[in-house]
Amino acid sequence: MEVAGLKTLVVVAHPEIKDSSTQQFLKEAAELQQNATWLELNNETLNEVTKNRELLRSNQRIILQFPLLWYSAPGILFEWLRLTLQQDDKVWLSGKELGIVVNIGQSEEAYRLGGSVGYSLSSLLSPIGSLANNLGLRLIPYFVIEKFVYQTEAARKRLLVDYLQYLELNQPTNFEERQDWAIKFLKEIRAKEDNPKIKLILNTFIEQKERLSELKDEINLMRKVDDNEY
Amino acid sequence: MEVAGLKTLVVVAHPEIKDSSTQQFLKEAAELQQNATWLELNNETLNEVTKNRELLRSNQRIILQFPLLWYSAPGILFEWLRLTLQQDDKVWLSGKELGIVVNIGQSEEAYRLGGSVGYSLSSLLSPIGSLANNLGLRLIPYFVIEKFVYQTEAARKRLLVDYLQYLELNQPTNFEERQDWAIKFLKEIRAKEDNPKIKLILNTFIEQKERLSELKDEINLMRKVDDNEY
Repeated sequence: MEVAGLKTLVVVAHPEIKDSSTQQFLKEAAELQQNATWLELNNETLNEVTKNRELLRSNQRIILQFPLLWYSAPGILFEWLRLTLQQDDKVWLSGKELGIVVNIGQSEEAYRLGGSVGYSLSSLLSPIGSLANNLGLRLIPYFVIEKFVYQTEAARKRLLVDYLQYLELNQPTNFEERQDWAIKFLKEIRAKEDNPKIKLILNTFIEQKERLSELKDEINLMRKVDDNEY
Repeated sequence: MEVAGLKTLVVVAHPEIKDSSTQQFLKEAAELQQNATWLELNNETLNEVTKNRELLRSNQRIILQFPLLWYSAPGILFEWLRLTLQQDDKVWLSGKELGIVVNIGQSEEAYRLGGSVGYSLSSLLSPIGSLANNLGLRLIPYFVIEKFVYQTEAARKRLLVDYLQYLELNQPTNFEERQDWAIKFLKEIRAKEDNPKIKLILNTFIEQKERLSELKDEINLMRKVDDNEY
């Protein structure tokens, strides 16, 4: 994307990251994002405290990315937070943004009163909400990936675009920004059109742009109806 | 306590357990409890999966005990759950009880809407609620220890009794059960009265028994007043 775009750190917590098709998919996606830095937590990176703090300092948006394991972020994420954050300095990260990319094996419908889980994702993820409060971070709406392994090719293309936009665009985003982003993206990658992966994305953006235009027309129509009614 | 009493497993998750005065205090307390098994999580015990599963199977009440670190249970607890629980067997622990002993550095008043944390402990601990749902465990009300290091000697004596009762008594408990428990406890330890630690507890129980009797009288009086009014 734009060289001067938002700098984003993606902190990936997964106990068996190499075996995770979701994480490998997201990793390939993030590689298309020039301003995104990918940090995988493992026994080695966990203890590079100085380096990890520098990464937090030098990025504007921090994404915590993980599967929900037994209804929580994995243990290694909390261990990393414990080692990296500083109890005695509450302002060093103040003003930055905090995002969450969480993948779940069930539909999100299960995460509600009366659903099979019975608790909302907002409740289960509330420790991260408190963390954001405490450090003066602006929490952006979480990004949820449902049942990735069962997703169709079309759903995954959509996911790829949504994910890249989650890493870079203002959140919550809107149609206008998504469309502008797509146009810029198209311009930048036109030179690389021989790459089949890029071609796939290109097609997705074109489809999306059309979808967005249709939606905008519909909304404008609805607004007109509303204006006549009130 | 009674040899035939409730068998309780206390799973202690603390990254620096030896330096925790709270955990050392609770450990000494639990040692007075014949039917309580103390399991400290560390790099060694974490990986003893067969042994840990056997401990879960052979105890009726399971207590997860930890300090809240960055608004969550410590990472090592979630890592232990991941290694020990079985995704493909949802009934092996069904019918057991699950308790939480959580210590916090602030007053619990901070854990509410508008408080400095802004989220309730019930919300922050909701992953454990989902876990209980999923495994068919009966969740008993959590036991919270506030600002242990600032507690007076009197507060700690009270804590010790409350904690021992949390490990063994029906939860939620009532005056009657607490009183019966205290009387049995007194009988059993009379033989060990030369131990100064035991003596301290003895005194606490006697005080508590008197307090309970007074409260019961007050409640009976209130009931009579109520009966007259309706």
